[in-house]
Amino acid sequence: MKKKQLATPCVGVVGLGLIGGSISLGLQAAGWRVHGLAHHYSAAERAQKLGLVTQVSTNPAVLENCNVVVLALPLTALLQPEEHLVKALPAMSVVMDVGSVKAPILQVWHTLHPRFVASHPMAGTAQSGMEASSATLFHGCPWVITPQNDTDQDALKTVQRLASVLGSHCLKVDAVQHDRAVALVSHLPVFVSAALLSTVCDEQDPDIRQLAMLLASSGFADSTRIGGGNPELGTAMASYNRLALLKGLASYRCKLEQLEQIIISSDWFQLHSELTLTQNLRPSFVPDRLQS
Amino acid sequence: MKKKQLATPCVGVVGLGLIGGSISLGLQAAGWRVHGLAHHYSAAERAQKLGLVTQVSTNPAVLENCNVVVLALPLTALLQPEEHLVKALPAMSVVMDVGSVKAPILQVWHTLHPRFVASHPMAGTAQSGMEASSATLFHGCPWVITPQNDTDQDALKTVQRLASVLGSHCLKVDAVQHDRAVALVSHLPVFVSAALLSTVCDEQDPDIRQLAMLLASSGFADSTRIGGGNPELGTAMASYNRLALLKGLASYRCKLEQLEQIIISSDWFQLHSELTLTQNLRPSFVPDRLQS
Repeated sequence: MKKKQLATPCVGVVGLGLIGGSISLGLQAAGWRVHGLAHHYSAAERAQKLGLVTQVSTNPAVLENCNVVVLALPLTALLQPEEHLVKALPAMSVVMDVGSVKAPILQVWHTLHPRFVASHPMAGTAQSGMEASSATLFHGCPWVITPQNDTDQDALKTVQRLASVLGSHCLKVDAVQHDRAVALVSHLPVFVSAALLSTVCDEQDPDIRQLAMLLASSGFADSTRIGGGNPELGTAMASYNRLALLKGLASYRCKLEQLEQIIISSDWFQLHSELTLTQNLRPSFVPDRLQS
Repeated sequence: MKKKQLATPCVGVVGLGLIGGSISLGLQAAGWRVHGLAHHYSAAERAQKLGLVTQVSTNPAVLENCNVVVLALPLTALLQPEEHLVKALPAMSVVMDVGSVKAPILQVWHTLHPRFVASHPMAGTAQSGMEASSATLFHGCPWVITPQNDTDQDALKTVQRLASVLGSHCLKVDAVQHDRAVALVSHLPVFVSAALLSTVCDEQDPDIRQLAMLLASSGFADSTRIGGGNPELGTAMASYNRLALLKGLASYRCKLEQLEQIIISSDWFQLHSELTLTQNLRPSFVPDRLQS
């Protein structure tokens, strides 16, 4: 019986949105069994129809025989976990999350389960929801793990194996450093982008506002994609990574004011240098697969 | 002879970058003849190899028998046109530009050619250069024309026909209003996006900077695409649409400070409302084909 479990691991996935759904599809494609736990009956039904999971339920008992449980829940649900979910987690299973902040999650989960591993796959698409799930979502992406001194080493290896099965590679990072880095490249851009949408909408002249709507093209679409995303996620990022985000916002404001001053003083030589710098910078920050 | 010209119009395209190249390909696909004028011999050779044009030269005499001449030049070249180019434009041909600001271009070209029409196709891709040209680049995009009271009505119809052959639809707009609208949806986003790249690069802690590079994902790639674009284009946008851009930057700065204040005061209810607003706004600003 134990041998059979090792051969085809059984993974519980709690929350079947884009990330939970994509993990499920990817693991199933590798021959793993996936037990899904959905909050609502309708989500369970959709997941079953889409073939995301081997079996699915709204009852946490579905996690009973799982070797690994992936918590693919929104940040708020992860940070204030329901008691019956915590109770249903098998003591011997590895429990991991995929949330976009790590220090607050470790603070909560460190004491909730002995084999908890905090992780964050650096993948995403413009779409959301289980219908957008893809078995290849994590291909080539770094999968951050933020172990602590007392993190179970076997549990860590299990998470590394799972990430590797999904085509990803693990990156061990300090939780606080992770949160500071994602504040810059993942959380700050949400507010920079949202402010751009609001600015156009707040244009006082209705003719110009109307015309701006008609003339917005691919550049505007790209720049506002994440600012027009899920409000729950944006709010959670800000509330659970508040200080690092505020530091990023302050630096950003200074940088933008510098550019504004250059334009005010019509220093086109300097502006050209600044834009040459950003043109040269981008390739080192953006992976090849996302360059265009 | 005249009849034959009407049946298969001959269009001169001056400048064979992404826009000039795509116009050439699209017109050729519709059976039109295209005479390309390139600045450098190497560009002419590449255009010939790629089949962008029916014939190509670095000598403006290539425009001699063209019914229409499209000036697909960088803004600076358009606003300080070379004398031998202006002299080579046939007096009876329709001359049109495709530049991203319209009032300064009209100011220069209004007196340079009697049948000049100012226009701006609202299309683009992340790529640039003639190699990225596509016959379908303009499909479904608005093609702005900014006629003046004395603009030749026949010339206007010719431009409308050309845009329609390329799968685009013309939109008559006042030049100053065009420039104010594109300041918001096209020029402002360049600087918002460039400042985001600079902010991450200016991070003082080298470990965090390094980690941010590793963790940047699709959201960062999208938000920084146009900020990492052509420095000549960004500088030209700022210098030729300076006041409208500065107005946009000032509004943007206020909006971002509002969001910052909301985060400082941890007013998550208010932040959620703001992000719900931007989520609801985006679909009206971004055409269906660019939603995702």
